[in-house]
Amino acid sequence: MMRHLLSTGDLSRDDAVLLLDTAEEMLSVAQRPIKKLPTLRGQTVVNLFFEDSTRTRISFEAAAKRLSADVINFAAKGSSVSKGESLKDTALTLQAMGADAVVIRHGASGAPARLARAGWIDSAILNAGDGSHEHPTQALLDAFTMRRHLAPSGDRSLEGRRVAIVGDVLHSRVARSNALLLATLGAEVTLVAPPTLMPYGVESWPVETSYDLDTVLAKSDAVMMLRVQTERMNAAFFPSAREYSRRYGLDSRRMAKLPEHAIVMHPGPMNRGMEITADVADSVRSVIVEQVTNGVAVRMAALYLLLSGARDAATTSPATTADLTEGQA
Amino acid sequence: MMRHLLSTGDLSRDDAVLLLDTAEEMLSVAQRPIKKLPTLRGQTVVNLFFEDSTRTRISFEAAAKRLSADVINFAAKGSSVSKGESLKDTALTLQAMGADAVVIRHGASGAPARLARAGWIDSAILNAGDGSHEHPTQALLDAFTMRRHLAPSGDRSLEGRRVAIVGDVLHSRVARSNALLLATLGAEVTLVAPPTLMPYGVESWPVETSYDLDTVLAKSDAVMMLRVQTERMNAAFFPSAREYSRRYGLDSRRMAKLPEHAIVMHPGPMNRGMEITADVADSVRSVIVEQVTNGVAVRMAALYLLLSGARDAATTSPATTADLTEGQA
Amino acid sequence: MMRHLLSTGDLSRDDAVLLLDTAEEMLSVAQRPIKKLPTLRGQTVVNLFFEDSTRTRISFEAAAKRLSADVINFAAKGSSVSKGESLKDTALTLQAMGADAVVIRHGASGAPARLARAGWIDSAILNAGDGSHEHPTQALLDAFTMRRHLAPSGDRSLEGRRVAIVGDVLHSRVARSNALLLATLGAEVTLVAPPTLMPYGVESWPVETSYDLDTVLAKSDAVMMLRVQTERMNAAFFPSAREYSRRYGLDSRRMAKLPEHAIVMHPGPMNRGMEITADVADSVRSVIVEQVTNGVAVRMAALYLLLSGARDAATTSPATTADLTEGQA
Repeated sequence: MMRHLLSTGDLSRDDAVLLLDTAEEMLSVAQRPIKKLPTLRGQTVVNLFFEDSTRTRISFEAAAKRLSADVINFAAKGSSVSKGESLKDTALTLQAMGADAVVIRHGASGAPARLARAGWIDSAILNAGDGSHEHPTQALLDAFTMRRHLAPSGDRSLEGRRVAIVGDVLHSRVARSNALLLATLGAEVTLVAPPTLMPYGVESWPVETSYDLDTVLAKSDAVMMLRVQTERMNAAFFPSAREYSRRYGLDSRRMAKLPEHAIVMHPGPMNRGMEITADVADSVRSVIVEQVTNGVAVRMAALYLLLSGARDAATTSPATTADLTEGQA
Repeated sequence: MMRHLLSTGDLSRDDAVLLLDTAEEMLSVAQRPIKKLPTLRGQTVVNLFFEDSTRTRISFEAAAKRLSADVINFAAKGSSVSKGESLKDTALTLQAMGADAVVIRHGASGAPARLARAGWIDSAILNAGDGSHEHPTQALLDAFTMRRHLAPSGDRSLEGRRVAIVGDVLHSRVARSNALLLATLGAEVTLVAPPTLMPYGVESWPVETSYDLDTVLAKSDAVMMLRVQTERMNAAFFPSAREYSRRYGLDSRRMAKLPEHAIVMHPGPMNRGMEITADVADSVRSVIVEQVTNGVAVRMAALYLLLSGARDAATTSPATTADLTEGQA
Repeated sequence: MMRHLLSTGDLSRDDAVLLLDTAEEMLSVAQRPIKKLPTLRGQTVVNLFFEDSTRTRISFEAAAKRLSADVINFAAKGSSVSKGESLKDTALTLQAMGADAVVIRHGASGAPARLARAGWIDSAILNAGDGSHEHPTQALLDAFTMRRHLAPSGDRSLEGRRVAIVGDVLHSRVARSNALLLATLGAEVTLVAPPTLMPYGVESWPVETSYDLDTVLAKSDAVMMLRVQTERMNAAFFPSAREYSRRYGLDSRRMAKLPEHAIVMHPGPMNRGMEITADVADSVRSVIVEQVTNGVAVRMAALYLLLSGARDAATTSPATTADLTEGQA
């Protein structure tokens, strides 16, 4: 098992499957009379957020608390960071205060990896989104959600499953993390985006690309609609919301082209009416709310595997329910 | 028992009395060696605040933690809400993350009720103040405080007790919630306010109104001074602080007109020297600090009744000390 | 033992030694399988911060959580404080909500002492930095760090040890708190600062002063480099960063003048390249990261002694490991 969770590109297929299997166990914790595990009691998880991201922060916070960890929220705005403290000194400080894990959200691509690779600190680093680079726990929760719907039993493999990722790929760390993880898991990804929102260098990603959403939908097992990040765009990239919706938005007419078993996903927050219509978002094929629930389970799994001493043992003996309940009164 | 706590207007007298009786039990928790109950262990309470209100937030936070719940604070500023996420999607997200209760403060009147009535979510919703509409836990803590002073034994009823609510009624959700609750409990409420600060439609409230504070005070068992919300006023409503204090402020000379047993209340934060003088605020008749303490107990009671499985059982079997200590090591 | 921790000037040598000895016990908690003590379960610690200071806040938060207290963060910005509520009413409110301790950071020198001495509240008050006045837990963690390096065994006294405090003394609450505490512990302090950054009235401090860093270094056991608070300065005080670094910064050439056993300290956050070079900050003589770790232990000790009922007993019977583990399952 890895020491940090920085990029889905670092995960072997065994790592990824272990994370997904562990998340299954974690999901069942919510069914218990007391919806907590004592596993990480006495451990401290710091949410180090250089950018606001309330959804991601509270998902990690809920995950850590459900494992009985102590959580400390550190919003970098107005902190010593704004007095010019370096990322290195911030990291050294958090480790010195006893942070067992640092969940980091940063506007600069590569910041979490820099932290981890510099060897400054021992704490486990979890990338909670860095620039337009990666958002690995989002990709893991997406894969987890796909697996529950598209491979609910048997070998539970996503091998050969076809996933369309649609929209503002250019600004999406979610797209990149998904593309890498799904390739590792054997799925086939097609990116669908207007030419101005397709990232440079996409040729080197393990994906197909297309500009024709309708054709792609007809052969997809899952379609993931990306949030249009209008706040990051200028008019040159994005001339018209109406035109965008017409060509790249998912409405019920278009949803009807999907195979009957296919699911509709969105990482949230949605622009209802822009990349997805309200009726599609609320339809029976939509698993968008489930993705949020699964996000807590996947983050519990990541924290558990990185912090519970499973670091060494994990590759040989996958987590079991017995491990998870060990030590519970 | 109700599933949500949205408005004191929704509470039957039995509901209200159950809440107040349960709050008595909760108040005694602070006297224990370990000032906590294990009742809500494993449950998650989210404080969803669209407006700053530190006092209310930390009162709910203290209440939830004293019941061993996990608390997640979600200040909507700078969150996905500011990226245009709808209240519906925010609510769905919180529920999907496992929120058992959502404590919501919102600038728009009716937002908490909309959340609850749309049937989007299962979590218990507690209104922590919506626009100038309602603030039910404030009214409950006020009634609780009155009961302890004006009906300390016997049937503990506020039937026939006379309460003056004085000042900026127009902007006060506290006044409205109190008027409704006190009517349910049988008390007689008189609103005293300058004509410009009396709300439209006050004729339909279950209250008397008056512009003559001195006369009303002489026959009141409790007087509640409202905060002048100067930040919400313009000069047309509120020509002069000095004139306001002279006519509607409570000073020691005026306090002397109250019957000997009467109590002085204020929901806080006070403008000392405006609606209340410092010596009155600190006098022996003032129960203002006690109100704050009672606020935690009342919020513990509300969370307990909404979350502890008492939803079904509560109307028939009121909570007892035995229930509260059940499961404690 | 004192009821509050307001100023290192209030501490007798016995008080200070008790705090340092207790912090040694607390430091060892981090080595346990479960890195927590149950000591303060059911107690509430409020972090009342009128100024941003994430480092100090999270250090207190980690300390309180490691003692199993509930922690409530109260950032005064945007709170009722900004609606004009007085410090007195804020304090009364926190106490009424059940705060057992209030950790206060305030921009005005003397605010924590005013809170404590007015007798308004019963909660223990811990000064987490007030204006340019005091920062007692910082001084305690500094003394603790010195003791571990300069007096690791025997009577563990700092008697006769020589400490240089260098730089922006004028704006430094750290300098003042250290000067007072180190004098109480018998150490000899020399302040080294440019004339414009030496505080008025320094003649009355129990210290020597010097403008010649090199000479002072040669006879120091510890050198504490202060953060240059450029945000509080104007050009008249601080003409040139380059000139400042040349005369008062610590680089490796200058560090070589220190005796071989001497340690290099900094309260953080550092301006690397200004008052200290990066190689010195990261050198083997630097104990800067250790100071951060020790800060949590010292704050645990302070909370423990103020809150655990040791208030009365402490001066006669110092805390022992047995006390600390009492009540642990």
